[in-house]
Amino acid sequence: MTIQTSKNIESGQGNISAARIHEYNSPLVIEDVQKPIISTPEGVLLKVGAAGLCHSDLHLIYGHWQKALPIKLPSIPGHEVAGWVEDTGISVPTSIKKGDLVAVFGGWGCGYCLYCKRGDEQMCQQAKWPGLSEYDGGFSEYILVPSYRFLVKPGEQPTLMKPEQIAPLTDAGLTPYRAIKKVRHLLGPNKFVAVVGIGGLGFYGTQYARIFGSGANVIAMDRSEAKLKMGTEIAGADFAVNISEPHEIKNKVKKITKGKGIDVILDTVGSENTINIGANSLSKSGTMVLVGLFGKEVKMPLFQTVLNEYQIYGSLWGNYNELCEVIELAKNGIIKHQVQKFSLSEVNEAIDLLVTGNIDGRAVIVP
Amino acid sequence: MTIQTSKNIESGQGNISAARIHEYNSPLVIEDVQKPIISTPEGVLLKVGAAGLCHSDLHLIYGHWQKALPIKLPSIPGHEVAGWVEDTGISVPTSIKKGDLVAVFGGWGCGYCLYCKRGDEQMCQQAKWPGLSEYDGGFSEYILVPSYRFLVKPGEQPTLMKPEQIAPLTDAGLTPYRAIKKVRHLLGPNKFVAVVGIGGLGFYGTQYARIFGSGANVIAMDRSEAKLKMGTEIAGADFAVNISEPHEIKNKVKKITKGKGIDVILDTVGSENTINIGANSLSKSGTMVLVGLFGKEVKMPLFQTVLNEYQIYGSLWGNYNELCEVIELAKNGIIKHQVQKFSLSEVNEAIDLLVTGNIDGRAVIVP
Amino acid sequence: MTIQTSKNIESGQGNISAARIHEYNSPLVIEDVQKPIISTPEGVLLKVGAAGLCHSDLHLIYGHWQKALPIKLPSIPGHEVAGWVEDTGISVPTSIKKGDLVAVFGGWGCGYCLYCKRGDEQMCQQAKWPGLSEYDGGFSEYILVPSYRFLVKPGEQPTLMKPEQIAPLTDAGLTPYRAIKKVRHLLGPNKFVAVVGIGGLGFYGTQYARIFGSGANVIAMDRSEAKLKMGTEIAGADFAVNISEPHEIKNKVKKITKGKGIDVILDTVGSENTINIGANSLSKSGTMVLVGLFGKEVKMPLFQTVLNEYQIYGSLWGNYNELCEVIELAKNGIIKHQVQKFSLSEVNEAIDLLVTGNIDGRAVIVP
Amino acid sequence: MTIQTSKNIESGQGNISAARIHEYNSPLVIEDVQKPIISTPEGVLLKVGAAGLCHSDLHLIYGHWQKALPIKLPSIPGHEVAGWVEDTGISVPTSIKKGDLVAVFGGWGCGYCLYCKRGDEQMCQQAKWPGLSEYDGGFSEYILVPSYRFLVKPGEQPTLMKPEQIAPLTDAGLTPYRAIKKVRHLLGPNKFVAVVGIGGLGFYGTQYARIFGSGANVIAMDRSEAKLKMGTEIAGADFAVNISEPHEIKNKVKKITKGKGIDVILDTVGSENTINIGANSLSKSGTMVLVGLFGKEVKMPLFQTVLNEYQIYGSLWGNYNELCEVIELAKNGIIKHQVQKFSLSEVNEAIDLLVTGNIDGRAVIVP
Repeated sequence: MTIQTSKNIESGQGNISAARIHEYNSPLVIEDVQKPIISTPEGVLLKVGAAGLCHSDLHLIYGHWQKALPIKLPSIPGHEVAGWVEDTGISVPTSIKKGDLVAVFGGWGCGYCLYCKRGDEQMCQQAKWPGLSEYDGGFSEYILVPSYRFLVKPGEQPTLMKPEQIAPLTDAGLTPYRAIKKVRHLLGPNKFVAVVGIGGLGFYGTQYARIFGSGANVIAMDRSEAKLKMGTEIAGADFAVNISEPHEIKNKVKKITKGKGIDVILDTVGSENTINIGANSLSKSGTMVLVGLFGKEVKMPLFQTVLNEYQIYGSLWGNYNELCEVIELAKNGIIKHQVQKFSLSEVNEAIDLLVTGNIDGRAVIVP
Repeated sequence: MTIQTSKNIESGQGNISAARIHEYNSPLVIEDVQKPIISTPEGVLLKVGAAGLCHSDLHLIYGHWQKALPIKLPSIPGHEVAGWVEDTGISVPTSIKKGDLVAVFGGWGCGYCLYCKRGDEQMCQQAKWPGLSEYDGGFSEYILVPSYRFLVKPGEQPTLMKPEQIAPLTDAGLTPYRAIKKVRHLLGPNKFVAVVGIGGLGFYGTQYARIFGSGANVIAMDRSEAKLKMGTEIAGADFAVNISEPHEIKNKVKKITKGKGIDVILDTVGSENTINIGANSLSKSGTMVLVGLFGKEVKMPLFQTVLNEYQIYGSLWGNYNELCEVIELAKNGIIKHQVQKFSLSEVNEAIDLLVTGNIDGRAVIVP
Repeated sequence: MTIQTSKNIESGQGNISAARIHEYNSPLVIEDVQKPIISTPEGVLLKVGAAGLCHSDLHLIYGHWQKALPIKLPSIPGHEVAGWVEDTGISVPTSIKKGDLVAVFGGWGCGYCLYCKRGDEQMCQQAKWPGLSEYDGGFSEYILVPSYRFLVKPGEQPTLMKPEQIAPLTDAGLTPYRAIKKVRHLLGPNKFVAVVGIGGLGFYGTQYARIFGSGANVIAMDRSEAKLKMGTEIAGADFAVNISEPHEIKNKVKKITKGKGIDVILDTVGSENTINIGANSLSKSGTMVLVGLFGKEVKMPLFQTVLNEYQIYGSLWGNYNELCEVIELAKNGIIKHQVQKFSLSEVNEAIDLLVTGNIDGRAVIVP
Repeated sequence: MTIQTSKNIESGQGNISAARIHEYNSPLVIEDVQKPIISTPEGVLLKVGAAGLCHSDLHLIYGHWQKALPIKLPSIPGHEVAGWVEDTGISVPTSIKKGDLVAVFGGWGCGYCLYCKRGDEQMCQQAKWPGLSEYDGGFSEYILVPSYRFLVKPGEQPTLMKPEQIAPLTDAGLTPYRAIKKVRHLLGPNKFVAVVGIGGLGFYGTQYARIFGSGANVIAMDRSEAKLKMGTEIAGADFAVNISEPHEIKNKVKKITKGKGIDVILDTVGSENTINIGANSLSKSGTMVLVGLFGKEVKMPLFQTVLNEYQIYGSLWGNYNELCEVIELAKNGIIKHQVQKFSLSEVNEAIDLLVTGNIDGRAVIVP
């Protein structure tokens, strides 16, 4: 049984422009699709203001995740979305109204399982993520959000915030935030924390390492001097280590940390290479948090893992409250943005630049 | 059996000048006393560089703690000490040597009980604190420290640090540090943390609230506009609330926190009045940490304590590792100092100024 | 706009019997009321199987909470409810179906605020608790639950569980559970944990102290020898301390704990007297968790609170996941029940017995 | 400078019998050696009552650790020791006196570094472990302990405890204790915890999983039916899974855990095989704690580690306070022992039985 549930019955009529995957490992097709219709009392229709482009989109588009995350094609990617409310379902409270600029929390959980009930909806077994499930994502003029409970209003001064600043916060800004929060109790005045990979996530991660570091020394690690510069000069890292020459890393780390090694490593890449660099750089009691998905395996030396009491954490995206906290940091000017804008028709160009490592910060599609 | 244990047998000969309590509630007597002698293999004799003056000293001198902390008079107060190594016991490692500038960790525990073995020597049931036990304190030209394990060497660049900067770190700097560490997991981007009393401890406490706040908003609370100015302009608080007019506090807090109240309150005063202010300012899930000892009782409304899940923590001084962390912050220039120097002969004058609230930051005796 | 939302349009017709507060401080009136109607797509109508009687009901009925928790009279109390599904709203998943025996989680939050989003719906600022808000409670033949998300199905073997066993778990069983979980990290082989008041909550609390104690010694404290016997012989406490003679308590505690005091105290009473007993029984680093609401104030000695680093926690009810855990314990036979059954017409008699301390375990109304 | 420091100057005279490594990968040589002499004021000479035989001893004897833990041969192994005080240094307090039965805490740290100062002396960079460093171990009639601070007196009722029960507690009993304490916050009523390898450590680990499990279901995993029987019938596991047939494990785990997997795995083996079994058995948010050292690498699938937020912890031995807690559990009869006794002359036979998996519980050398 379907019931008419939107407040404005005409909001879902007509066609809109969107970028879709038609087959894996091919360019996205920019084409007309039907405008989505609010189908639940809590649903909200948004006019997309901006949608970030993520390495996860590449994994999806290239078909790496056909088995792990099967979706039906054609499908619109884009799970990092901010936009304006266009119409609302009949149960949506009046605090969410037409014209509001909102961020979309993408971990759309069932609301009823252990994980949803503890507030980690992104961990839900039955989570449906926009652009990564049967729900279409944000590389489109409009997006349908199944419940207002997945929206965050940046609040009183929305004029200060543009959608292209908000959108990246919902994943590039959120994922390293959760990761750093998992280890904040390990940071402090005489600790060293490194962020590996100063791309979309690492740029924010470096800033969080400083903000949550409680006086810890922050090290940026990347193969690109330009990104290292961004890490130190904009994001606030104290040290930069170029990891393109593996044999020099150990000595550099030794020198910076006065021989003790790095206490906490946030790896936003997750390649065999970066995990190995981390494993060789950890201090006693050292901790590695993994959010990047480039590799296949986590490999650590057993003897050192036990004798040094290493800890290795996987960390997945972030939850709703964490997104609110990230947005609060942005509102208060505590974190900086670094975005490159592309129109919807330039989406394949943006993908190519991301693949070749030529995006500084986050690429954002502005339909 | 006593054994001659110092490396330099002559170090303990002759007389030195010191300030002693002869009877409670009277001025300290500045007089000649015997120079202390190293009597254990691990002992260290220090030439005092500086000794901070603390409200605890007032409680002691006025006899408030005759029952709780009985000591034998005459006695030299002063538990916040930094100085230069003069001589060392035969078991002291060579890394601690004559001329070194060191901070004295004052929580001299037994080393063998539950608390010492977990690293909280200041909590030891049999702790002997310098100037607050049978051990003489630092209002003296020399002080005997029973073990090198109670010393912290600020490290490679001691020339950057003067003893009058180091000494206050060992209590005024250490006590709010431990207190804030207890609650750092409760702080973050959309939280409010208040420090009540911007004196010797609160000045550091405000800085820690910022450093450990992870983006939290910091509120300084005091009755003195001068101290509030120090709290905001030097220590970095975002807001100041003058608490001299109780009826206005609630509204001010409401306005600053947008109605939700203060998440974490660090009370460095502990008077009936300040605890009551805190109890009325807490947010849901609000937490109060008490380090000040001015009052007799902690009183909280029961219904709100249960329904809002308040938490109240007492926090005692700090442990050795925490002192190392504080010193690291100072070495890296992350915390600022605010001290007023007095010579040993001016100690009673310093006491009077502290009693009347006329010390900005910490009073330090430089013998 | 109201929409017809139940699957069986006739479920809400006719009259039912219920016990209502008509004016404060008077007996409940047993009378006919209209059967409730499902008014939201997620709503569930339950035939009440059992509803526990709680000290909170007394506070409510006697008007103690007129200001703190104002409700419109007449009103049906009863926030500890289990029953069978009678009808479901159109959005309720088929896993919740007619005839299912379910427990009602009573912390009906907004689902959208900081607390709901972290899973602590009972902490929601706008929480509506059944029988303690505009929503009617369970002293009635039927109760309307606004969302299936507030129901817990005990699972595969419901035949093992009677509603009069399930109902008390939702508050008497849940409240001390959350309280003990807050302090489980403080318990262990050489620790002492005391439960004060072996009534409805304390009976469960004593069992949790044992289950979560990790080898800790459990002390039951009450003024009634019968209840102490229940605490030791049924709930598994290692020691019993009768607290009716205050001057003997200190010595008894000293003897049991070999002089060190009690590490963790769960106070299910919260009177001035019991809090004072707790304050005088705590060990160094001792912690008190308060769930009882009999008194007006929490009073602790300041000097000891700071020097011993006491911790005081308020704890409110429990959250949905915690209720699932409690039910799991019961399903696995790890916790025991102690209930006294009363029919709906005997509700005022049950109230009188509770007031005079003559209920062993929990009084449960079986309509 | 060496000073005569023992109370009884003759205690260190004469020869004693001991088992020594003369060359790696050869049987131990049982021979006469000089009785050790107390050389520091805090030292204690013990008559060995029992010394446990550990897989670490095998690694040492076979020369696997020549690089990682270089020692000078000949050397006496044995780091799990209990014995009677024979003589004490001049600074040893009178509470430790001749004839006392004591357990030896083996993590002999420097007492002054970050790790020692936080109470984790076994983590000390300069730790000297008996039998694994320049200090001789307990496969000998006498052992010299450098400080009384490394001794635990089981307390008032030593007659209840035999040295062969105490000795294994100091490693086999201590190592899994620390490991389980690291994850106790993850355990509870609807959780599953598995112990892999029901040998010396796993036998205790299974008991801790139950004691600290707070109602969690405990699974014993081993290749030997006899050991699984010990795990369920003596140590109290709820389920047993034979891991000798890898292809059946997944289904067995699925069935036991109703499809969700195991929440916490304590791996006391650490072989490539057992770690792989663990990696394939973990639930969402699953955690693996590694204490066994059989393999070379920890390998986990990256995608699952991130998406399921796995946690992997290394855990090293235990600290002094943890040993006190283990001994408390034993004193209170909460943990059971399973030891096989061998005389000093049978040490090589015991080694052979351990290598072939034919020791039930712990092998203990009783000189």
